[in-house]
Order: sequence, then C-alpha cells, then structure tokens
Amino acid sequence: MLRFYYAPHTCALASHIAFEEAGAAVEYVRIDFATEQQRSPAYRAINPKARVPALVTDRGVLTETPALLAFIAQSFPAARLAPLDDPFAFARVQEFNSYLCSTLHVAHAHRMRGYRWADDPAAIAAMQRKAPQAVSECFALIERTMFQGPWVMGERYTICDPYLFTIAQWWEADGVDPAALPKLADHRRRMQDRPAVQRAIATELA
Amino acid sequence: MLRFYYAPHTCALASHIAFEEAGAAVEYVRIDFATEQQRSPAYRAINPKARVPALVTDRGVLTETPALLAFIAQSFPAARLAPLDDPFAFARVQEFNSYLCSTLHVAHAHRMRGYRWADDPAAIAAMQRKAPQAVSECFALIERTMFQGPWVMGERYTICDPYLFTIAQWWEADGVDPAALPKLADHRRRMQDRPAVQRAIATELA
Repeated sequence: MLRFYYAPHTCALASHIAFEEAGAAVEYVRIDFATEQQRSPAYRAINPKARVPALVTDRGVLTETPALLAFIAQSFPAARLAPLDDPFAFARVQEFNSYLCSTLHVAHAHRMRGYRWADDPAAIAAMQRKAPQAVSECFALIERTMFQGPWVMGERYTICDPYLFTIAQWWEADGVDPAALPKLADHRRRMQDRPAVQRAIATELA
Repeated sequence: MLRFYYAPHTCALASHIAFEEAGAAVEYVRIDFATEQQRSPAYRAINPKARVPALVTDRGVLTETPALLAFIAQSFPAARLAPLDDPFAFARVQEFNSYLCSTLHVAHAHRMRGYRWADDPAAIAAMQRKAPQAVSECFALIERTMFQGPWVMGERYTICDPYLFTIAQWWEADGVDPAALPKLADHRRRMQDRPAVQRAIATELA
C-alpha cells in the first residue's frame, strides 16, 4: 500500500510523475495549503515537518523528494528510472537532485517563505527582491554545467527529469527568463508531452 | 584514484569521516576559504559551484554531501555504512541526509552567508538574528522525531551519523543549547570517541 500526500504547485509533483512513469498503484491525497492543512495535528501525525510530500508505506512514512525519487527508482526497477547498478552514475543522479533540494528549491523558497529565516518584514521583502536573481543563477549553472541532454543525465530519462521539470514549472512566477535557458526550455516542452507528466498534472489540478 | 577537496569547519567533514570509517585511500586537498580559493578559476574548473566538498574520481567529479555519502557507502560495501539491500531502509537514510542538506544546513547558512538570498545589509543582519532559533528548531525536530538511538538509524551506525555530527560541531557558534538536546549531545560525545572521527578532524585541522 502506498498513499501519497501532495499539494498542487509543490515539489510533490516530482515524485508523482515518477510514480506515473513507474506505473505504480498509489492513492493520492491532496493537502489544502489554503487552510494550512499541512499544519493540522492530523497531518503532523503523518509528517511532523508539516510539509509535503509524504509517502505512507506499509513500513512507515517517507519524506524528502530526493529520498522518495531514489526509493521509487529502487522499488520499481523495471521502469529504469535510475542507474541502480552503477554507484558513480547513481551518485551523479543524486548529486543533481541534492543540488535541486538544497540550493535551487531553497533559492525559490525565499520568494514566498522568507519568514522561515527572518522575522523583519523588510528583510522578507529583501529576500523576495533577490529571489529571481538567485533562482536564475541556479538554472544558468544547470544549463551550463549539469544538463547533458536530451535528458538531464544524457540519453537516459531518470528521476532527475521530473524533479527539474517540477521546479521549472515555477519559472514565470519566479521571474526566470526561459529565453536565457534554451536547453532547459526545450526539456520543459518535451516533458509536457509525456503521458506520465500529463496524468500527474491532471490529477493534481483536478 | 580519489582526491577530496575540503575546507575545515565545513560539511566536507561528513564525507571525510565516512572515508575514514571505510578505510578508503583518499588524497585530501585543503581549499583556503580565507583567500577565497574556492572561487578561483583553478577550483571552479573542478567544481563550478565554487564550494566544498568535491571528489575527483577516475570517472569525473562528484559534489553534494548526500550524494557523496551514499557513493562512499556503495563503493565500500564492506564498511556497512548504509542498508544497501533494503530500499525502504536506504530511503530512511537518504531522507535524514536530505533534511540535513536542504533544511538544517540551510538554516545554519543564514548566519554567515545571508548575502546569497538578500543584498540589503539590514536583511542579512535579520537573518543572522533568527539563525539560532531556526537551527535550534531543526535539531529539536531531529531529537524528537528522527533520531532513533544509539545511532541516528538505531543500532546500526550509518552515513547519517557523521553528517549529523558535522553539523552538531557548529552548535556553539550557531547558538544552539546542547542541554536541550540530550540524545543528540550524547551522540556528539560518542562520535568524538571514534578513531575515524579523530583522524578526520586531525587531518583537517593539521
């Protein structure tokens, strides 16, 4: 049994797409951020971090997108979503996903969730002002040094692709210029054509 | 051939300890943050992110602590540093390390590197003021909900332990009260007794 807690427009989409790519049987449960359901006692009993995503399994709850993506790849090896038999190639996948969670997603979070790191409203406004630059610099580094093409890791589609795509969904709101990122913009277009991506987005926005 | 670029008092220590635990033959190269060597063209040619750690292997360069730790565990399986044959247990390890890199280390970074997320000196000062609270809340959550004891993942020492220990090295500077974290304080003391930890620290501070 797999039950996946998500909210639309969050990084939960990355794991959702990976589940769809793997053909996994998953029950999807939406958490309503508008009413701050993620901070409710009932949800905190599932995920004390009060965030999404969270995956309930028969053995316990898992959180954190890079961990979930590797778990999905290892749990559904037939889908070939990661180079599981090659520690170096697997480390490359993990390196990319770790950069997304610890640097790129964090840069993005300063646009809407500056209260995590400062109390002063002027400081929070200063973070909002810098977020487009910080996020754009991360994507420029990916375009220039990490993205191999046609997929993130080269010829083979991996768990890096839905994660990159998920954060690239926020370009317009984050003030990122797609014209400055031709390889990543092409990647985003091709991702949108994948049936697994379309199914995941349709479920989340239904 | 493995060549590991580090700087003292950074998260590079986590991988350094893991290499020592595994008995790995590694060449250690110190990067001088005082002269901003991490931003030099020579180092950027190794790691375009201009940060440590970076591991040079025969197949290329790897960065990002969670990726490096899993790579070390997979490359030296005899050291039994992660539950490699159990996707759920491995995901638990990855979930913990992902939380450290994306939430705890990020909260810490706002004390000294606020310029990453705002330009206004007053905003950077506001981040410094909140860092002790944000970091302390992360450690409290680890103490309360994640740490199993006697090691992070329970009876078995894993790659989570050197990573937690590395960030716990910064408690005093980060304004964290060890008395509020009895399980983690005990863990930090026991980590300091391990020969691998002592060797790694001795090399870094030599």
